[in-house]
Amino acid sequence: MIRRRQLIKAAGLGAAGAALAMPALGQGLPEVKWRLASSFPRSLDLLHGGAEVFAQAVADATDGKFQIQIFAPGEVVSSLEALDAVQKGTVEACHTALSYYWGKDPTFALATGVPFGMNSRQQSAWFSHGGGNDLLNEFLKDFGCSALPAGNTGCQMGGWFRSEIKSAADLNGLKIRIGGVAGKVLQRLGAVPQQIAAGEIYSELDKGSIDAAAWVGPYDDEKIGLTKVARFYYYPGWLAGSTTLHLVFNQAKWNDLPKPYRAILTTAAGLANADMQARYDAANPAALKRLVAGGAKLRAIPQDVLEASYKAASELYKEIADDNPKFKKVLEAFTAFRNDEYLWWQVAEYTYDNFMIRQRAKG
Amino acid sequence: MIRRRQLIKAAGLGAAGAALAMPALGQGLPEVKWRLASSFPRSLDLLHGGAEVFAQAVADATDGKFQIQIFAPGEVVSSLEALDAVQKGTVEACHTALSYYWGKDPTFALATGVPFGMNSRQQSAWFSHGGGNDLLNEFLKDFGCSALPAGNTGCQMGGWFRSEIKSAADLNGLKIRIGGVAGKVLQRLGAVPQQIAAGEIYSELDKGSIDAAAWVGPYDDEKIGLTKVARFYYYPGWLAGSTTLHLVFNQAKWNDLPKPYRAILTTAAGLANADMQARYDAANPAALKRLVAGGAKLRAIPQDVLEASYKAASELYKEIADDNPKFKKVLEAFTAFRNDEYLWWQVAEYTYDNFMIRQRAKG
Repeated sequence: MIRRRQLIKAAGLGAAGAALAMPALGQGLPEVKWRLASSFPRSLDLLHGGAEVFAQAVADATDGKFQIQIFAPGEVVSSLEALDAVQKGTVEACHTALSYYWGKDPTFALATGVPFGMNSRQQSAWFSHGGGNDLLNEFLKDFGCSALPAGNTGCQMGGWFRSEIKSAADLNGLKIRIGGVAGKVLQRLGAVPQQIAAGEIYSELDKGSIDAAAWVGPYDDEKIGLTKVARFYYYPGWLAGSTTLHLVFNQAKWNDLPKPYRAILTTAAGLANADMQARYDAANPAALKRLVAGGAKLRAIPQDVLEASYKAASELYKEIADDNPKFKKVLEAFTAFRNDEYLWWQVAEYTYDNFMIRQRAKG
Repeated sequence: MIRRRQLIKAAGLGAAGAALAMPALGQGLPEVKWRLASSFPRSLDLLHGGAEVFAQAVADATDGKFQIQIFAPGEVVSSLEALDAVQKGTVEACHTALSYYWGKDPTFALATGVPFGMNSRQQSAWFSHGGGNDLLNEFLKDFGCSALPAGNTGCQMGGWFRSEIKSAADLNGLKIRIGGVAGKVLQRLGAVPQQIAAGEIYSELDKGSIDAAAWVGPYDDEKIGLTKVARFYYYPGWLAGSTTLHLVFNQAKWNDLPKPYRAILTTAAGLANADMQARYDAANPAALKRLVAGGAKLRAIPQDVLEASYKAASELYKEIADDNPKFKKVLEAFTAFRNDEYLWWQVAEYTYDNFMIRQRAKG
């Protein structure tokens, strides 16, 4: 028995302190248990699932030695407290939309996606090969955290409206359930942004105490069943272009990990990032068909609304940038990358999609 | 000394045979050395780099215990022999375009991308969450292999032409350097597909012994410098829609791996898959600008050429499917998924990109 315990000790296992030891080649890797706060309830299975895909990949790669327990909002902290919990070390990591914290600093919004930002592929390219990850992690240093992209919804929808919007004038006085930067943009168009919890969107629209609500895209929207209370379903979701979610790590806890575990977390986050987009892409078409069959009326956001929103967004960004050098720095990098991307996009990707969409419509 | 050797033995290390042992929790994982044949020369750094990203992620995750040595074409086998080398067990894995083997069975082409196939995101979604991986691996069983997507170039360009193409009639008799299924499609439009090695494209165009050549997209095309010998640069690359590369594993070698190593390979392939697309997306815009500044004349492929090619491709697929039930099965799944994707695409992604492209053009 003593012999066996010595072997275990020699392999760097068993003792809690061993989790911090850098293992030499040939030693077994330590057992590590982490807690992760997700900002997304289990009912939003693809959003919540991002953390699950990540944690499973980490467990599988480490033969179960590195276990990450996922907590839904309310189980440890609320949805919007996930970042704070990581910063304080209450949990080692969280899976969240960094834009939730834009009240601390609007720079957070640029990490997730802002009105008229990049599409999903462009945003992934910016993070991994356009300097985006470095800029974000430089910014996150002040919060004692670092982050990796871990999921994207793709372009979302523009929201559910009780009545049709024919021009920008129709937005005047409209109470719209919408948060963050997009809410500030719509405010400039005369709309009144409302903060309403997901669980109350249906009843507030039903009562008519709000006129419209932005949520996600077909697959998630279908779950809260807004077709009956706000049947005009607008596209595209200019509110973000695409929405990147992040895994955020407490920097001290990250630094304590053996190097191979840091590598495994990084690779698993990369997988989770691509996997969520693929799940949304696979799930949205059928959901859209069901929504339309159930009475949703698809409508394009009028061009003048898009243009007025674009103008308002540009003005808002300029105002924030004038006051906030961190925001300015990230915004300038973000915008330059986006503009170059769309220069290339219009040549090959867009032209190809254009042809394919028209061929499909012909049957 | 005896004590130390016993420890090493107890940890499942040292002996070559230990590489095949399934380690229990707490044991160190075995040292494994694999050889991987890449079909892409080092000069095509993003294509070749896919295997490097993969091998590095595997080494990092295993603290260097699982080493994958990458061989460029010609170092072990030629570019087009990579799959055979995996099948025979000459190497444990390869990184290749499965379409290279369409002569064995045209079903291989559907794994990589065919004329008027899916775009990059759609293809990734099909593989991971639309049944594509399962269909492909069922097909690969007869070859004693299995595969994971590991890289995509995105939509490519339509090729370099010595003179302008104004309509489908201009393709008649044109000698075009193009391979695979796309070559068969162009043949139906009266063109004469040519098989020419990459290193000879420039001189053959310069001599005028061919009239046009398809290669990849701006970043790779720039390297072989065709602007001077064929300045009309056509878009989009209908030849594929997107091009998925694969890591292919010898099934017996894969089965011999401990479970955590199989998990690490899977996660690392997922990372490599997304990473190559991001690298291309980050690199193409600047390359396109340089090509245009250097004299390349960007031209849209005329609509009647696209439509005639679409018709020819559809007829070709039907003829192959009538003869080949494996091709038929994969084609039907592929086409159904693609059509649903484009139904959704035209609503949000495409409309968003459309607006952003027009805004950028306005400045």
